[in-house]
Amino acid sequence: MKTLIVYAHPEPESLNGALKDLAVTTLEKAGHEVRVSDLYAMDWKAVVDAADYGPAASTPLRVARDSGRAFDTGDLTPDVRGEQEKLLWAESIIFQFPLWWYSMPAILKGWVDRVFTQHFGYGVGEHSDTKYGERYGEGTLAGRRALLSVTIGGQESHYSARGVNGPVEDLLFPIHHGILYYPGIEVLPPFVAYGAGRLTAAAYRDIAKAWEQRLITLDSTEPIAFRPQNSGDYEIPSLQLKEGLEPAGRTGFGLHVRG
Amino acid sequence: MKTLIVYAHPEPESLNGALKDLAVTTLEKAGHEVRVSDLYAMDWKAVVDAADYGPAASTPLRVARDSGRAFDTGDLTPDVRGEQEKLLWAESIIFQFPLWWYSMPAILKGWVDRVFTQHFGYGVGEHSDTKYGERYGEGTLAGRRALLSVTIGGQESHYSARGVNGPVEDLLFPIHHGILYYPGIEVLPPFVAYGAGRLTAAAYRDIAKAWEQRLITLDSTEPIAFRPQNSGDYEIPSLQLKEGLEPAGRTGFGLHVRG
Repeated sequence: MKTLIVYAHPEPESLNGALKDLAVTTLEKAGHEVRVSDLYAMDWKAVVDAADYGPAASTPLRVARDSGRAFDTGDLTPDVRGEQEKLLWAESIIFQFPLWWYSMPAILKGWVDRVFTQHFGYGVGEHSDTKYGERYGEGTLAGRRALLSVTIGGQESHYSARGVNGPVEDLLFPIHHGILYYPGIEVLPPFVAYGAGRLTAAAYRDIAKAWEQRLITLDSTEPIAFRPQNSGDYEIPSLQLKEGLEPAGRTGFGLHVRG
Repeated sequence: MKTLIVYAHPEPESLNGALKDLAVTTLEKAGHEVRVSDLYAMDWKAVVDAADYGPAASTPLRVARDSGRAFDTGDLTPDVRGEQEKLLWAESIIFQFPLWWYSMPAILKGWVDRVFTQHFGYGVGEHSDTKYGERYGEGTLAGRRALLSVTIGGQESHYSARGVNGPVEDLLFPIHHGILYYPGIEVLPPFVAYGAGRLTAAAYRDIAKAWEQRLITLDSTEPIAFRPQNSGDYEIPSLQLKEGLEPAGRTGFGLHVRG
């Protein structure tokens, strides 16, 4: 299997660095080909601007349309094209990052903002009165699977169903569903390490063991059962979930998971 | 009233640019003092790294602790100190940005990551067996109010209670609650402009009129009724919402809103 690891932490000697290194060695030992996008080491440009689109940038700049034109004409910058090629090469993608302010670090958000251009990440397929594109289960990256490996400073109970921060699966939904499932990637349940700021050696060993287990079962783990947009579950053109499809009492983001 | 506008769009001649300009003129006409942090114009550094903490950066880098030490010793970089001063000066804060991949643009996430340091944005107040800091309704920025003004390319029904993207209030919860309410800011209901990519002149006039109405009622609008962490609504130390406090059937992020 071909695995891309997208890694976003400024300190190699961090928990995130250790989990990234462990992923590389564990996957290679299991026969995977592994590539790593170490965003800090690459000095990844985080900010979308006109320079991303070369001669395809219009005046005034129109981010969505210009990114699609640059994608079509091959005018995207080499760093962005390189990441798009890695995504097309990969069969599975692991994202290793700390949860900062309940989302990804800016450098990783900037990887998404710049790499997931129009016609690559979105704006794919027919857009008409009866179809709103190939997205949510279809798209450029269909057939791939992704796994978030996230470190969190706080305690697990704070992220539980009634925890003050909100349930971790809801906090990650905009990434799981909105960023990864959108261009067609199947999403595995996340690997979350809590209390990341003050781990004992024993706690780290437990986390490392659990992480290895997730890595060696990467191919066989069941993805989150998000609903494909174009499977008949949604009204057209409002794209609202049809009445009665959800288990009783389920609301919010959970509506978009089957079963 | 003193208002800070934090604005994140690469193109001045955009809908975001127009709404930011309209906010400045409307608020100044209403007697507000207004300051603008135009992140693209400032060439805002989006990425957290050791350079942010000067001599307070340790080897290996520890982002949370080192950011708190740099805050305490005055060693944060001038750009970050400047933004912290603006936040302390402001009585209300408006964030103007496009929703990219269901969250903020990387440049704005990098503003949060770098400006909301330990001892300023988090890690404030007593942390013990009986208290987990001053946060969610208390903290450095208590007494201020914030308003997100967000442009969205898609259609409103896609962001409704049953819409395929998820409800907009849940998509914004990690920002509203996790970033703004966390250090004590009261959060007003958001202003959202849908269909931003292809607005007619008439549609823009309607949006501008609605935005002016929100701006002139900035002082009097009722904030979202998030639950203060230290008000007795949460178990200690698990910080889970006490049983029975929520309206029947409410789950997920909605648990943390009263009434």
